[in-house]
Amino acid sequence: MKTNPGNFFEDFRLGQTIRHATPRTVTAGDQALYTALYGSRFAVQSSDAFAQRAGYHSAPIDDLLTFHIVFGKTVPDISLNAVANLGYAECRFLKPAYPGDTLSTVSEVIGLKENSSAKTGTVYVRSVGINQRGEEVLSYVRWVMVRKRDETAPAPPAHVPDLVKRVDPAAFGAACPVINSASWDDGLSGSSHRFGDYAAGEKIDHVDGMTVEEAEHQLATRLYQNTAKVHFNQHSEAQGRFGRRLIYGGHVISLARALSFNGLANAFHIAAINGGRHVAPLFAGGTVFAWSEILETAEVAGCGGVGALRIMTRATRDLPCADFPTADGAPGEPGVILELDYWVLMVK
Amino acid sequence: MKTNPGNFFEDFRLGQTIRHATPRTVTAGDQALYTALYGSRFAVQSSDAFAQRAGYHSAPIDDLLTFHIVFGKTVPDISLNAVANLGYAECRFLKPAYPGDTLSTVSEVIGLKENSSAKTGTVYVRSVGINQRGEEVLSYVRWVMVRKRDETAPAPPAHVPDLVKRVDPAAFGAACPVINSASWDDGLSGSSHRFGDYAAGEKIDHVDGMTVEEAEHQLATRLYQNTAKVHFNQHSEAQGRFGRRLIYGGHVISLARALSFNGLANAFHIAAINGGRHVAPLFAGGTVFAWSEILETAEVAGCGGVGALRIMTRATRDLPCADFPTADGAPGEPGVILELDYWVLMVK
Amino acid sequence: MKTNPGNFFEDFRLGQTIRHATPRTVTAGDQALYTALYGSRFAVQSSDAFAQRAGYHSAPIDDLLTFHIVFGKTVPDISLNAVANLGYAECRFLKPAYPGDTLSTVSEVIGLKENSSAKTGTVYVRSVGINQRGEEVLSYVRWVMVRKRDETAPAPPAHVPDLVKRVDPAAFGAACPVINSASWDDGLSGSSHRFGDYAAGEKIDHVDGMTVEEAEHQLATRLYQNTAKVHFNQHSEAQGRFGRRLIYGGHVISLARALSFNGLANAFHIAAINGGRHVAPLFAGGTVFAWSEILETAEVAGCGGVGALRIMTRATRDLPCADFPTADGAPGEPGVILELDYWVLMVK
Repeated sequence: MKTNPGNFFEDFRLGQTIRHATPRTVTAGDQALYTALYGSRFAVQSSDAFAQRAGYHSAPIDDLLTFHIVFGKTVPDISLNAVANLGYAECRFLKPAYPGDTLSTVSEVIGLKENSSAKTGTVYVRSVGINQRGEEVLSYVRWVMVRKRDETAPAPPAHVPDLVKRVDPAAFGAACPVINSASWDDGLSGSSHRFGDYAAGEKIDHVDGMTVEEAEHQLATRLYQNTAKVHFNQHSEAQGRFGRRLIYGGHVISLARALSFNGLANAFHIAAINGGRHVAPLFAGGTVFAWSEILETAEVAGCGGVGALRIMTRATRDLPCADFPTADGAPGEPGVILELDYWVLMVK
Repeated sequence: MKTNPGNFFEDFRLGQTIRHATPRTVTAGDQALYTALYGSRFAVQSSDAFAQRAGYHSAPIDDLLTFHIVFGKTVPDISLNAVANLGYAECRFLKPAYPGDTLSTVSEVIGLKENSSAKTGTVYVRSVGINQRGEEVLSYVRWVMVRKRDETAPAPPAHVPDLVKRVDPAAFGAACPVINSASWDDGLSGSSHRFGDYAAGEKIDHVDGMTVEEAEHQLATRLYQNTAKVHFNQHSEAQGRFGRRLIYGGHVISLARALSFNGLANAFHIAAINGGRHVAPLFAGGTVFAWSEILETAEVAGCGGVGALRIMTRATRDLPCADFPTADGAPGEPGVILELDYWVLMVK
Repeated sequence: MKTNPGNFFEDFRLGQTIRHATPRTVTAGDQALYTALYGSRFAVQSSDAFAQRAGYHSAPIDDLLTFHIVFGKTVPDISLNAVANLGYAECRFLKPAYPGDTLSTVSEVIGLKENSSAKTGTVYVRSVGINQRGEEVLSYVRWVMVRKRDETAPAPPAHVPDLVKRVDPAAFGAACPVINSASWDDGLSGSSHRFGDYAAGEKIDHVDGMTVEEAEHQLATRLYQNTAKVHFNQHSEAQGRFGRRLIYGGHVISLARALSFNGLANAFHIAAINGGRHVAPLFAGGTVFAWSEILETAEVAGCGGVGALRIMTRATRDLPCADFPTADGAPGEPGVILELDYWVLMVK
């Protein structure tokens, strides 16, 4: 068969390395689309002049655009037969990507555990995004529940990797140059609140809401060359679990990050994602809101001019966040749809 | 509070200068999206080869894309608490923007007048778009009706600026090079009608209509990093004045300009906007038509090869323009939605 | 009249040459939008690094993006008053287009035949896309049924051009460099199936389906500066034949090509289109599927490292293709909407 049926649970082997198609040169065109899709306003990613003054070569590609492109490549090999995307961990942004860089992705299977039903199993992969010079740009772990092709296939030895719940700031990558905080212009960046102004326990309602249309999430997900069928095919999804197309979880992450500008404008770089959970699905017509809690503040060795904020951002569907909601709504009800635990760098 | 509540009427001071976030490098990606959003076909903005032959360095960014980006930055500071966008005046395009240029915006408060209700006041600002070399690219005045935070706050001395109703051609900027009209190729530009073929009083129905979708105006408005809540948030707008998202007025201006190609193909540059009025709102599903009246023709000193046409373009909703409609429809009825009085340069 | 009424059947003359507006510089922004619209994943067009290793200067513009841009320019002159787009033939891709190239189009009228009703006639044109160096990039024939302005206008002598049903591989253009097949990386290209693995008669169901939204096909068609009214104007189409906007046929071709990646991943270049037929219309909300039959395999002289596959790809609406459907559904029913007979080059 010449078409790709995707891998089933019994096709994965512990330690297996998978090189993914298709390499992708990211361009100013991708960044423009990213801005149009989410309305992101962080100055470093928006302005060559601002980025250069801060210490970058030029405006880097948005961290999450890099993430989505690196992630999209893994879908045909890892999650085409997935029942659920269970989690992310140990995601570190290691190098900035600039327009003109070509990204490709390699994954290693680091864990396998068949479920008691013998119908599915959990696959853990560490995926690494690499640029055209062979440098690692991004590394993350995700685990997905994948169907078995044949329920009678024997279970592999169960192996669940040890994953840290929290990326140590000492393990941050070199995706951020030494920031010239003296020349950082708060007027242009959109906020005078810098690292020292935030404290653990602080909660910020990001106020704004963004309604998502079918055309928008489809454009986004195709831009990332993510081929997961549930996002594009209303003919099959009409018969599916929800009766409609499911929005790529990464679209929600990017919406939440863009909304978080209102309150975190100087958090110019995502250094790491400790974990993420898609608590409930999002469908077109839903309006996304977000709020953040500062979990921790940390110094960052070897990266002058900035400190790190560990943040839990929650995104909701059809539920403004003035009351900082955490309880999940019933299916179909307004409520939290995303919990994202991540580190940002903020100028001091 | 770390989120931006926007300025209320009593927060503005006459003479106050406001530097706006976020600086924005415009790219070929933005221009491609602009083409996809409006289908604009003016040859100078579409083709490097045509633009160079005419006298430009390369194809400049569409004038209105520059306008929307410069405008978008002012929203969080000027009009987040606006009840209505009342007008534009004295808009002059001063320098071309090219892909790679970084635009930022500074505004000065040039007028304040509290309304008799004491609930709102009118704020007049002159906003200037500046490139990465500090050169002024665009300058315009707009006035908006802004809510007061506190109705008992004392009214400032009323000051209404003197604004010209008509930008004098002598005040046009240097956004247009000396055009080589001999090498201007009418076959490629789309029309053999040049400056001398138009006369004051002439009316042109631009014939075509364009239906707007929610995804389209949201992509556009986010591309401009315009954060006005009414354009994106169906959850809140469902409870609002119209029950639905309002389309950014600038989207209508760009649609009208793109439609006007059919009849004004050689009007390659907007030199100035004398005034603009959003007569009625536009919502997704509406079809926009446009017609233009030539108000005046003028010579342009120091800009060889071109003359200026002062044009009133009216855009309508769900109303073809063969009869040159001017009366407004009742709310919800087909009718005029935009009146735009502006100067274009046309090759001689 | 300054607006373009389009040409009617009696306006065309055999041998007439028509230079079309508007020249268009294609950019990385256009390519990013193309990816977002169709999710195309062919490695040569996606990655500068992959393309360079294969023998290209850098990633070329997608062949069909070039086709749509060259085609779009012909609409205002050729098909504004068309009743039907009847067919394509002898389409050859002659040179790659790269970001920064400027495309324009010239057409020659090569056939005319009035219909017996005397209300319409068929116009045959050969259109050639030319870059900024005057090199031919693309050449194709299409024929359309065009209304007469005046039914009493005399019929021209009937002339129907001889068109080949099959472009001979010896007539392929130079749009493909000598491919370095030894350094072609199947892991990155997405498939280990190369030229030798395909045989005439083989059928491939491309499996995936893609639902189309109004905003998507409008963005696409405007990106191509295609002005055909039926695609954009719901106000007039509500009164028209279908009651709704008709999706540009080229949008279906691009969807089918992108879907065909799943089964034809190494078919990196369209060398020629032998013929195409839009069997039934597509409207927003429809889900497009596709399947392909290998009609023929051929050697390509002077183009090392590759062979040619002649393929018939059929696209369907709301009909998965596991059974390789060929019969047309009734109007409004699921069924085949496109038959495209074309040559691709595939690495050996």
